[in-house]
Amino acid sequence: MGWGDLGALGEPSKETPNLDQMAAEGMLFLDFYTANPLCSPSRAALLTGRLPVRNGFYTTNGHARNAYTPQDIVGGIPDSELLLPELLKKAGYINKIIGKWHLGHRPQFHPLRHGFDEWFGSPNCHFGPYDNRERPNIPVYRDWEMVGRYYEDFKIDLKTGEANLTQLYLQEALDFISKQQASQQPFFLYWAIDATHAPVYASKQFLGTSQRGLYGDAVREIDDSIGKILNHLQRLGISENTFVFFTSDNGAALISAPKQGGSNGPFLCGKQTTFEGGMREPAIAWWPGHIPAGRVSHQLGNVMDLFSTSLSLAGLQPPSDRQIDGIDLLPVILQGKLIDRPIFYYRGNELMAVRAGLYKAHYWTWSNSWEEHGKGIDFCPGQSVSGVTTHTQEEHTYLPLLFHLGRDPGEKFPLSFASEEYQRAVERLSGLVQQHKATLVPGQPQLNMCDQAVMNWSPPGCEKLGKCLKAPESDPKKCPWPH
Amino acid sequence: MGWGDLGALGEPSKETPNLDQMAAEGMLFLDFYTANPLCSPSRAALLTGRLPVRNGFYTTNGHARNAYTPQDIVGGIPDSELLLPELLKKAGYINKIIGKWHLGHRPQFHPLRHGFDEWFGSPNCHFGPYDNRERPNIPVYRDWEMVGRYYEDFKIDLKTGEANLTQLYLQEALDFISKQQASQQPFFLYWAIDATHAPVYASKQFLGTSQRGLYGDAVREIDDSIGKILNHLQRLGISENTFVFFTSDNGAALISAPKQGGSNGPFLCGKQTTFEGGMREPAIAWWPGHIPAGRVSHQLGNVMDLFSTSLSLAGLQPPSDRQIDGIDLLPVILQGKLIDRPIFYYRGNELMAVRAGLYKAHYWTWSNSWEEHGKGIDFCPGQSVSGVTTHTQEEHTYLPLLFHLGRDPGEKFPLSFASEEYQRAVERLSGLVQQHKATLVPGQPQLNMCDQAVMNWSPPGCEKLGKCLKAPESDPKKCPWPH
Repeated sequence: MGWGDLGALGEPSKETPNLDQMAAEGMLFLDFYTANPLCSPSRAALLTGRLPVRNGFYTTNGHARNAYTPQDIVGGIPDSELLLPELLKKAGYINKIIGKWHLGHRPQFHPLRHGFDEWFGSPNCHFGPYDNRERPNIPVYRDWEMVGRYYEDFKIDLKTGEANLTQLYLQEALDFISKQQASQQPFFLYWAIDATHAPVYASKQFLGTSQRGLYGDAVREIDDSIGKILNHLQRLGISENTFVFFTSDNGAALISAPKQGGSNGPFLCGKQTTFEGGMREPAIAWWPGHIPAGRVSHQLGNVMDLFSTSLSLAGLQPPSDRQIDGIDLLPVILQGKLIDRPIFYYRGNELMAVRAGLYKAHYWTWSNSWEEHGKGIDFCPGQSVSGVTTHTQEEHTYLPLLFHLGRDPGEKFPLSFASEEYQRAVERLSGLVQQHKATLVPGQPQLNMCDQAVMNWSPPGCEKLGKCLKAPESDPKKCPWPH
Repeated sequence: MGWGDLGALGEPSKETPNLDQMAAEGMLFLDFYTANPLCSPSRAALLTGRLPVRNGFYTTNGHARNAYTPQDIVGGIPDSELLLPELLKKAGYINKIIGKWHLGHRPQFHPLRHGFDEWFGSPNCHFGPYDNRERPNIPVYRDWEMVGRYYEDFKIDLKTGEANLTQLYLQEALDFISKQQASQQPFFLYWAIDATHAPVYASKQFLGTSQRGLYGDAVREIDDSIGKILNHLQRLGISENTFVFFTSDNGAALISAPKQGGSNGPFLCGKQTTFEGGMREPAIAWWPGHIPAGRVSHQLGNVMDLFSTSLSLAGLQPPSDRQIDGIDLLPVILQGKLIDRPIFYYRGNELMAVRAGLYKAHYWTWSNSWEEHGKGIDFCPGQSVSGVTTHTQEEHTYLPLLFHLGRDPGEKFPLSFASEEYQRAVERLSGLVQQHKATLVPGQPQLNMCDQAVMNWSPPGCEKLGKCLKAPESDPKKCPWPH
C-alpha cells in the first residue's frame, strides 16, 4: 500500500473508514518510512531493527539493485540475526505471524526457528499459478508444516480477482487474540497479510464495492479487517493493554497501476525507487488510554523503529552487541517528543539518499533502466522530473540533489547548488552520511544466489498431503535483479 | 488553493487544523469543481450560477484560451446578468464582498451596482508594484470609493512576503458579522480574499511558521482566519443560523510552485488546465445543528451550485428566464442525497472535457503551447502523460480520451477505445455533451478587448486622496491570451 491509499491521507474516494478512525483515535505519522523500497528487505528490517545492508537482505549482483526473496533464492535470514519475536519470548510473549514471511523459505529460515511460536501463511509472494514442474506453487503453512498450496488448496481467481485469503488471515488473527486473552498470556501478532500485493484479490463480499476497482476492493477488505481486529481487542477488554501499529512494507507499486497498484498521494514515483513514493508509508499507532486521540506526528519514523519500540513496550533492552537502526518511538507516541534522526534510503547496498529534518539529498538517482523502461516497466507513470527520475544510474555524490520536502514534497524542484540553504543543508546531511558509512559493517548478502532446486518442491508436511514434488538438480546461479 | 492544500485532503505537512475541523464538523466534498480553471471566470460563475460561456467571462481571441480580468480589460459583468446578491436583496439580505471582485473594474461593473451593499477590497489581482505611469497600482475600495492603492497604502513586501491584507480582510469580516448580528439582519458575506494568489504574502505573525515556505504561511493564515470567523459565529450565537461554505476558484498554480504555488494532491497538472488539478477544489459545507458532523460527499459539485443553494437557503427561486448551471445542494448537504449531473470543463468557449459519475472524457487536450513551455511556463511540472498533457491543442472529438477517475484519479491511464467500458461510458458522456451544446446560448464575450485607457487611473474617490492619475489615449486592442 502507498501513503496516499488512506482516506485520512487524501485518497479521493475516501474508502478507509476504519483506518481513518484508527488514526482519529491514535497517532498518525506523516513522515514514516520503510527501510527499503521493496517487500522482503523491508520486512527483514522490521523484524531485526536493522537496515537490510546490515541484516543481509540485499544483493551485490549489480550496483544499486533491489532484490527480494523469490522461491529460488538460496539465502534467508541469518541465524546470527536476532528477531523481535526471539527477544520478546524472553519476556513471556507468544508470537504469531499471519501471512507472508518472506525471510527465506528453506528449512533453516522457517519463522518458528526464528522466534515465532505460530505461523499461518506463506513463505513467498502469492505469484502463480505455476505448473508444479518448472516451478511449484507456493505453499501455505500452519506452523511447522504446509497445509496446501496457493491456487490449489487456497484459491485465487486471477480472472475475477476473487480470493478469501484476507478473510482467512483475519479469522486467524481474531482466534489468536481470543486465545491469548483467554490464557492471559502476552502476545505479539505480526499480521503480515499478502494483500494488496499483485496479483490483487479480494473476497467476494468486497469485489466491486470500491470506486477504485479491484485494488480498492482489496484496500477496503484490509480496512474492514483492521476495524474488526481493533473492535475485537475492545470487546475482549484488552485494547488498553495492546499496542497496535499499522504500516506497509513499501510504496504503492505504480508499475501495476491502475488495476493492481495504489496511490502514493503527492509523492514521486513508487515501489522500487528511493523517491518518497517508494518509501514513505501510511503509519498509525493506536493504543486507547495511552495515546491521546487525534494526534499527528512529524517524527521521522521507520519500520525498524517497531523493533525497538516493541522491545521497549515489553520492558526489554535492544541487543547491545550490534548496531540497531530502529529507535524507541514511545517518547514520540506518548509524550509527543520529536527525536532528531536521519532516514537512509538504500537500493541494494548503495545509499541512494538521506533525509534529515525537511531536507533530502539524493546521492544517486535511478528509476529503472532504459531497457526495462522500453518494455513498459514504469515506476513513475506520468511523472518525469528532468535529472531526477533518471533511467541511467546517475551519481551525485559530490553535488547531491537536494529537496526541501516541506515546500516540495513531490521532489520536483531541486535546490540551487549555489544557494546558502543548499550548502548548509548538504553539509549537515553529508556529515550524517559520513558518520553512517564510517561505522557500517555490511552483513553477508543473502540475495545473490538463486537455485531452482531450493524452491518449495517438498516443504515439510507435503508427504501427508501427497503434495511433494520432485526437485531438479541443483544449479546455483547469480540471481538476475533487473531493478 | 488546490485540492491537496488541506491537511484533511492529504497535504503532508497537515497545517490546516481549522479547515480540517470545519470538515470534521460539517460536510467535506471530494468531487467539487470550479467552473473554469482560472480566477475571474470562476468567480463570475459563482455569483451568476452560470457557466462563463453563458455569462460572458470568456474570450474568442484564440481557440480554447483562458482569459481573465486584468486592469486593461474593457469588459466586465453584463447588466443583464443577475447576481446572487441582487437576488438575495429581495429577501432582505445585506450583502458584502471582502477581497477581490474581479468581475470588471470600470464604473458600470462596480459590485455595488450589482447587488452588493458593501465592499472592501480590490477590483483586480494584487499584481505590482507598478510605476503609475505605464500602469497604475491597483486600488483598494471601501464601498463606492477607493481608499488607497496596493503597494502604496496597502503594503506588500515582495522581498519578505509580508503583507497584513488577510488580517484586514479578516477584521472586516468579523466586524460585518457583528454588525449584522446586532441589527438582526440576514447577511451574505462573500469573503473573497486575494491569498493564496501570487505574489504570495502573509502577515508577520505567520511568516516562517509553515513547513511549506511562504505559500504555506499564507495557507496557515487563511486557515487561522477561517477558524476565527467560525468561532465568531459561534460566539455570537448565530452559527446554527449561518450557512458557511469554503472553496477555491481554481486549482493550485503549479506554475508558481514551489515558492508561490500549492498542491493539487494526486491530481494532474494545475491552474489553467482542464485536468483535475486545474479544477477540482477543496470544498466544505458547515452549518452546525443542520449538517451532521463528519460527513463526506461524492456529489459532483460546482461553485455555481453555491448560487442555487444560497437562493434555496433564502427561500428564493432561481431566475426562470435563463439557463442556470448551478444546482441546489441542500438535499445533498442535509439529506445525503446524490444528484446525477455532469461537470463541464471549459477553456474559453471550448468544451474541453466532461465528467459524469466516475468517467471523464476529454474532447480536447492542452496544457500550454510549446512556445510558452519553452519559456519555462509549466502547468504540469514533473508530470507528463503521453498524448494527454499535450503542448499542441489536440482534438479528440470523435474518439474522446476517457479516464475512470475512481481507479485513476491522476488521469494517467486512458481507457482502451476498444473496450466495452469505453463505448458505454463515451456514449453516455457524448449524449450529455450533445444535450448541453444543443441548448447553449453563449453570452457576449467580455474578455476580448483590452485598452490601457480603462485601467485604474482615476477610480472614484481618487480626488480626495490626491491619487488620480492621467490616463493615456484610448487604444482598444484584442487582448493577448497566451494560455
